[in-house]
Amino acid sequence: MRGNSLPDLGVGLIGTGFMGRAHALAFHNARTTFELPINLKLAALADADAARAQDCASRWGFERSHADWQQLISDPAVDLVAITTPNLLHFPMAMAALEAGKAVYCEKPLAVSLGQARQMHAAARKAGVVTRVGYNYQHNPMIGLAREMIEAGELGRIISFQGEFSEDFMGDALSPWSWRCEEAHAGGALADLGSHLLAMARYLLGDVEAVCADSQTVHPQRPAARGSNEQRAINIDDQTYALLRFANGARGTFGSSWLKHGYKNHLSFEISGTLGTLSFDQERLNELRLYRAGAPGRDGFQRILAGPQQPGYAAFCPAPGHQLGYNELKALEVHELIQALQGNGGNGTDFAEAMEVERLATAIRLAAKEMRWVTMTDV
Amino acid sequence: MRGNSLPDLGVGLIGTGFMGRAHALAFHNARTTFELPINLKLAALADADAARAQDCASRWGFERSHADWQQLISDPAVDLVAITTPNLLHFPMAMAALEAGKAVYCEKPLAVSLGQARQMHAAARKAGVVTRVGYNYQHNPMIGLAREMIEAGELGRIISFQGEFSEDFMGDALSPWSWRCEEAHAGGALADLGSHLLAMARYLLGDVEAVCADSQTVHPQRPAARGSNEQRAINIDDQTYALLRFANGARGTFGSSWLKHGYKNHLSFEISGTLGTLSFDQERLNELRLYRAGAPGRDGFQRILAGPQQPGYAAFCPAPGHQLGYNELKALEVHELIQALQGNGGNGTDFAEAMEVERLATAIRLAAKEMRWVTMTDV
Amino acid sequence: MRGNSLPDLGVGLIGTGFMGRAHALAFHNARTTFELPINLKLAALADADAARAQDCASRWGFERSHADWQQLISDPAVDLVAITTPNLLHFPMAMAALEAGKAVYCEKPLAVSLGQARQMHAAARKAGVVTRVGYNYQHNPMIGLAREMIEAGELGRIISFQGEFSEDFMGDALSPWSWRCEEAHAGGALADLGSHLLAMARYLLGDVEAVCADSQTVHPQRPAARGSNEQRAINIDDQTYALLRFANGARGTFGSSWLKHGYKNHLSFEISGTLGTLSFDQERLNELRLYRAGAPGRDGFQRILAGPQQPGYAAFCPAPGHQLGYNELKALEVHELIQALQGNGGNGTDFAEAMEVERLATAIRLAAKEMRWVTMTDV
Amino acid sequence: MRGNSLPDLGVGLIGTGFMGRAHALAFHNARTTFELPINLKLAALADADAARAQDCASRWGFERSHADWQQLISDPAVDLVAITTPNLLHFPMAMAALEAGKAVYCEKPLAVSLGQARQMHAAARKAGVVTRVGYNYQHNPMIGLAREMIEAGELGRIISFQGEFSEDFMGDALSPWSWRCEEAHAGGALADLGSHLLAMARYLLGDVEAVCADSQTVHPQRPAARGSNEQRAINIDDQTYALLRFANGARGTFGSSWLKHGYKNHLSFEISGTLGTLSFDQERLNELRLYRAGAPGRDGFQRILAGPQQPGYAAFCPAPGHQLGYNELKALEVHELIQALQGNGGNGTDFAEAMEVERLATAIRLAAKEMRWVTMTDV
Repeated sequence: MRGNSLPDLGVGLIGTGFMGRAHALAFHNARTTFELPINLKLAALADADAARAQDCASRWGFERSHADWQQLISDPAVDLVAITTPNLLHFPMAMAALEAGKAVYCEKPLAVSLGQARQMHAAARKAGVVTRVGYNYQHNPMIGLAREMIEAGELGRIISFQGEFSEDFMGDALSPWSWRCEEAHAGGALADLGSHLLAMARYLLGDVEAVCADSQTVHPQRPAARGSNEQRAINIDDQTYALLRFANGARGTFGSSWLKHGYKNHLSFEISGTLGTLSFDQERLNELRLYRAGAPGRDGFQRILAGPQQPGYAAFCPAPGHQLGYNELKALEVHELIQALQGNGGNGTDFAEAMEVERLATAIRLAAKEMRWVTMTDV
Repeated sequence: MRGNSLPDLGVGLIGTGFMGRAHALAFHNARTTFELPINLKLAALADADAARAQDCASRWGFERSHADWQQLISDPAVDLVAITTPNLLHFPMAMAALEAGKAVYCEKPLAVSLGQARQMHAAARKAGVVTRVGYNYQHNPMIGLAREMIEAGELGRIISFQGEFSEDFMGDALSPWSWRCEEAHAGGALADLGSHLLAMARYLLGDVEAVCADSQTVHPQRPAARGSNEQRAINIDDQTYALLRFANGARGTFGSSWLKHGYKNHLSFEISGTLGTLSFDQERLNELRLYRAGAPGRDGFQRILAGPQQPGYAAFCPAPGHQLGYNELKALEVHELIQALQGNGGNGTDFAEAMEVERLATAIRLAAKEMRWVTMTDV
Repeated sequence: MRGNSLPDLGVGLIGTGFMGRAHALAFHNARTTFELPINLKLAALADADAARAQDCASRWGFERSHADWQQLISDPAVDLVAITTPNLLHFPMAMAALEAGKAVYCEKPLAVSLGQARQMHAAARKAGVVTRVGYNYQHNPMIGLAREMIEAGELGRIISFQGEFSEDFMGDALSPWSWRCEEAHAGGALADLGSHLLAMARYLLGDVEAVCADSQTVHPQRPAARGSNEQRAINIDDQTYALLRFANGARGTFGSSWLKHGYKNHLSFEISGTLGTLSFDQERLNELRLYRAGAPGRDGFQRILAGPQQPGYAAFCPAPGHQLGYNELKALEVHELIQALQGNGGNGTDFAEAMEVERLATAIRLAAKEMRWVTMTDV
Repeated sequence: MRGNSLPDLGVGLIGTGFMGRAHALAFHNARTTFELPINLKLAALADADAARAQDCASRWGFERSHADWQQLISDPAVDLVAITTPNLLHFPMAMAALEAGKAVYCEKPLAVSLGQARQMHAAARKAGVVTRVGYNYQHNPMIGLAREMIEAGELGRIISFQGEFSEDFMGDALSPWSWRCEEAHAGGALADLGSHLLAMARYLLGDVEAVCADSQTVHPQRPAARGSNEQRAINIDDQTYALLRFANGARGTFGSSWLKHGYKNHLSFEISGTLGTLSFDQERLNELRLYRAGAPGRDGFQRILAGPQQPGYAAFCPAPGHQLGYNELKALEVHELIQALQGNGGNGTDFAEAMEVERLATAIRLAAKEMRWVTMTDV
C-alpha cells in the first residue's frame, strides 16, 4: 500500500470563516492534485464555537475539532498549525505554535505591528521550523512566469516598477466602520491591500532601499454599522501613494486605495527593463501582458494566457485557456509549503520575509507621516 | 452529530485520467464549500489498471477501488455513477448503470452517435433516475447571469446569436492523429468543440429550427504520432461553420475550429436583442460584456466581473474580482446534480437535453454534407 | 517655381453634404501632405442649391461653383469628377462623366442595382479612364499591413475568414424610415454596411466562389419620421448572415446588421491561416491584432499599433501611437487615385472591382431569398 | 458674396518641419470644417531655407514665403504668428511677435527655462494679445467629455489622479543623443513628455500644491549619432516619477519615461472620485473608460466611444466609431484659438497657463534634485 509507506503530516487549522474554509479547500485540492510525498491528514479544526467547530470538521473532513485553539496546538496529531483568525490573534497563536515546535502557516498580515513581527520572526528562527504567511497571489503560475522572465534577463536590466492595488469596497462614504478601519488590527488601505503589493514587489524585484509617501484619510468618519446613524472617527488611510527606489536600481510608484471605484481586486503592476515590459492585473489572473523590443513592424504588447507550460497550472488544467481561480492559488501555496516541510525548497513567504514586508510598510507609513524620504535603514 | 442525520450519497467514479481527477476535485470542492443536504461519500473508484485504481483511490479519498467498472456499478455503496472514460465507453457504462437503476453523471459527449444517444435517453427515461452530462461551462455563474438577463428581458427580444468555439491545438499540420480524429469516437471540431457551443446556445436561447453549414477537412492527413513519418488519412472536420435559425426568431452564425491559431479555449458568443447586447469569452470566464441601449453620451460596452451577487461565485469567493477557475465550474455542476438528486431542480444537461445537442450537431453535419438547409424535423 | 512645371489636375466635386465636405478635406489633406506630381486644383463644386454651392465653394477653397452638375461635368477645368450625391444619382452622374471622358471618383455603392453597375463598368471600360469607388476603409495603413502579411505568407495558407459589420443606428424599433430602408436606393444592412465588408474580404482574400445566406427584416414597420405616428412598411434586411467559400479555399462567416446594440462602426474581421491569425476592428482603426504560431510559452495575441513603418501613416504622423482618423483614410484614397491618374498603379476599388462587390452582394441576396447555396456563376 | 463681409485673419507660420506641416493641415482642416466667422488666410510661411520656404508655401497654399522670420513677423498681412521651430527659438520669436502686437500660437514647450517662460508671460500680458501654446491633446473631444463629467460632479469629489506619459523611443541604450537630451533645449523625459501630462492634469483638476519626485538618468551616455562610436554624456532624466497633491484635495502619482518599451504615445491617466472613476489612454484617443458606482450586479468599466454628441467630433465625423486622428486635434486647437481671437472664449493653454505648467515641471525637478517635498510657493 502506497499510503502506508509515507510519513503522516497532520494539519491543525484554526478558524472557520471564509479563510478557514479556503484553507480546507486548499488542503483537499493539494492532496487530490499532487502526488504528495506525505500522507496529508486533516487532523484537527478549532473554533471558539464548539458546535461550529464540530460541524465544520465533519463537513470539511477533519478528524476532530477543538473549541480551544491551545488544545489544537498541543494536539500531538498536529504537525502544522494553520492560522486564519482575525489579525490580532496571529501573534499569540503563532508564538504558541512556535513555542510548541510546530510549523506555522499564518494568514497575512503576519502581525499588527512591526514589533510583533520582529518577535515572531525571532521566535521562528529560534524554533527552526518551517513558516509561511499566506501571500498566496505569488503562487499564481503567471507570477512565477514573470519572475522567471525577470531572473532570466528577458526584460534586460529592470528600470521601473509601477504598482497599484486598488479596490472599491470602502468607496462609498457610507461604507461602515469595521475592524479594517483600526490601526490596531492592521487596518487601512496600505496594510490591508498595499502589503500584498509590497510582498509582490519584493518577490519580483528584491529589496527596496528608500521610499517617499503620501497617505490620506478621505472619509474621516463612517457609520458604526451599515445604515447606522452613529458615526465613528476614522484614523487609518483610505489611500496611500509612494515612490520606491529598489536596491537593483529600479525606480517607481506604488499605490493602494480601497476607494477606487470600479476596481475589485486590482493588484496590478508593470515592470519595465532595458529589453521589454511586462504587466499583470490580478483581476485577470490567468494572463500576463508582455512586450519585447526588437520586432520592428510586428511589435506590440501581447497577451500570454496561462497554460500547462507552467507546472502549477498543469497540475489543475490540461490545456491553456482553462484558467485557475483564487482557491487554486491557495492550493499551490499549500503544495509549496509541503515541499518546504520536506526540505525541498518551496517558494513562499516565510516569517523572515513577511517581517521585511511589514518593515517596508512601516517605512512608507513613516515617510508619509513625516513627509520625507525614508531609507530602510531608518526603520 | 449533524452528519448522522443526513442520508448518504455514494459516488462511484469510473476513470482516473485528467477528467477523473477533475471529478474527484469537484466532489471534494462541493462537499467542503456547500452545506449539502446529504452525506456525500466517495464510495468507489474504478480503473482497468487495478494498482492505479487503488493508488488514486487512496490519494483522492475514495473508500475502495475496482478494476472492473461493472463491479463498481453493482457496488451497493454506489448511488451515482460518474463516467469519465473515453467516449466510446460512455454508452455501455451508462446503459449498465441505468439498468442497475443508478443515477448517471456522464462526461460529454453523451455518445458517439445519435442512435446511441437516443437509446441512452430512452433508457434514462425508463429508469426514471437523475442523469447529467458534463457540459460544465454552463455552470459558470456568468453564464447564469447571462441567462437571467435574457430571461428577464433585459436585452429585449433576442434577435441574433454569433458563436464560435475555436482552439488551435490541431493548428499545426504536423499535430498528430489521435482518437479525436475519428468519427467513430465522436471526433472532429464540430463534435469535440462545437457541441459545447451548441449546448450553450440551447441553454441560453432554446431550440434551433433550421441550419445550413459548411465543414472542411483542411489537413487530409496527419502523422500517426508526433514526429512519425507514417501518415494517416483524416476524415473528420477541422472546421465547421453554420447559419442558425432559432425557434425564438433569432438568427446567427456558428463556428467551430481547432485550427485557429491563438485561441486556446475560445468558446465565445454574442447575443443581441432589441435592448442590448451581451458577449462572453470562455478565455475570460469571470467576465461578461454588456451593452444596454439608452444612455446617450454615456453608453458603451461594459465589463462585468463575476462577484458574490451570483450564488455560485459567492460559494467560493467572498468578493468580486477573485475569480473562479475551470475546476470550480465542475464543482458547481456537482452541486446542481446533488440538488437534482434531492428533487430540488438543479440546472444542468440531462440525457434528454444532451440527446438534443447530438441531434443538432447531426443536423449541422447533414446540412454540410448535402449543402442545403436542414430543419430539425429532418433529423 | 516648382508648381509651374507640373501638370494641372482639376477636381470637380458634386455634392456638399457630409461626404462632399469629406472629399474637400481629403483633397486639401492630400495636397498638403504629399509631394504630388501634379498641381491639384479644386476647380469646381456643384450643388443644386446655387447659394449653398457658392458658399461652400468659398469656404472649401473651390475656384467656382455650379448649380447644375451637368455644367460641372462639361467644365473644361474639371479633369476628375467626384460624386458624393445620394445613391440614386451615382448612375446618371457617373455615366455622364464617363461619356465626357473624365475620370470618376464615386462614393460607394457604385449603383443601386447590379444592372446599373454592369453598365457603369462597361462604360468605364469603353471610356478608358481611371475610376474609383470610395471604399476608403481599405486605405487604412493597417489594412495595408494585413494585406502585406497575407500576401507574404506570414499567416501561411489562409483557411478561415470571420467578418462582421455591425452598427446600431437602426437598433431602436422607433428609429424612423429613411432612404436607407428602400431597396431602390441600395438600402438595407447588407447593401449599406455589408458591402464594405465584402469589398474588404475581396481586397484581402480575393474571389468568393459560393455563398449561403439568411436575411431578416426584424422590424417590419417603422415611423415615417422621428416621433411620427405614421408607419411605413419596411422590406429591406435589418440583418444578413452568410457562409462564404473563397476561391483560395478559405471558408467562413459573414454578418451585417444595423441592429446590434453597442456597435458604432464595427467593420471587423478575423483571418486565420496555417501559421497565424490576424484580426481587425474598424472601431480601433489604428490597431491590428496578430498571433503567430511558434513561440511556445511566450505566445499570445499581440496588438500592433499603426506607425510610420506604413507609408500612409508616416505621411500624417511622425511616430507610432498618434493615430489616423477617418478623414485621413479618405486623403489616402485620394492619394492612391492620383497615383492611378499618373499611371503609377494606385490601390483602390475601380468600377470593375466595385461591380464585383455588387455581384457578390447580389449572390448573397439570392441565396437568402431562395434558401440555397449560390455559386458566383449563378449571378 | 459671403466671404467678402468677413474680416480677414492672416496667419504667418514659421517652420516647415513636421510640426509646420501639421499646422498647415490644421488651418486647412479648420477652415473647411467649421463655418468660421473670419476669412482665414494663409498669408506667409517662413523657413531659413528660402527655396524650401517657397516650395512649401506653394504646396501648402500660403500666399508668400520669407527666408527671414523677422520679416514674417513684420509682414502686415500677418495677424497671427504660429511658431513651430526648435524649442530654443520659441523665446526670441514669440517675444518679437508680441513686441509687434501680434497674436502668438507657439508650439510646446513655451520656453526652455522658467525664466524665459515668465518673461514671455509678462510680455503677452503687456501686449494684450491672444496667445496659445500647442498642448493639442486637450482639444480631444474625449478630454472635453472627461472635463465636463468632472465639472458636473459625475465622479463626485475627486480624490485621486494617476497619470503616466510613457514612450519607448529612447528605450534602446543605443538610441543616439539628440537635442532632446540637452537640458538647454528643454530636453529630458519630464520636459518633453511629462509637460503634456502636467498640462492635462491642470486642465482637468486645477492647481497642484505640492510635489515630491524622483528622476533618473538610466543611460548616462549615448552614441553621438545612430551607429556612431563617439559617446556623449547624458545629463537629463530618462524617467521621472512624482507624488502630486492637488489644491482640490486629490492625491496621486505621476510618471514620465521615454524608456518604457511597448508604449508609443501613452499619455494616460485615471481620475477617481467619490462616485466613479474615469481613465484615458492617448494610444486610443477616441475612447474613455468610465465606471459609475451604483448599479449593483450590472456594474463594470465601460468603454465610451467618441461620437457626435461631442461638438468637436461632430465637426469631422457624422457618426460614432469613425475616429479622429492626431491632426484633427490640432485643427480643433486652431478652431478654439480663432474663437479666442474673436473674443468668444476658446479653450486652450495661453502663455499664463503654459508658464504654470513650466513652473510645475520646475517644482518636480527641484523636488527630485533635493529629494524633498516642494510646495508651489517654493518655485
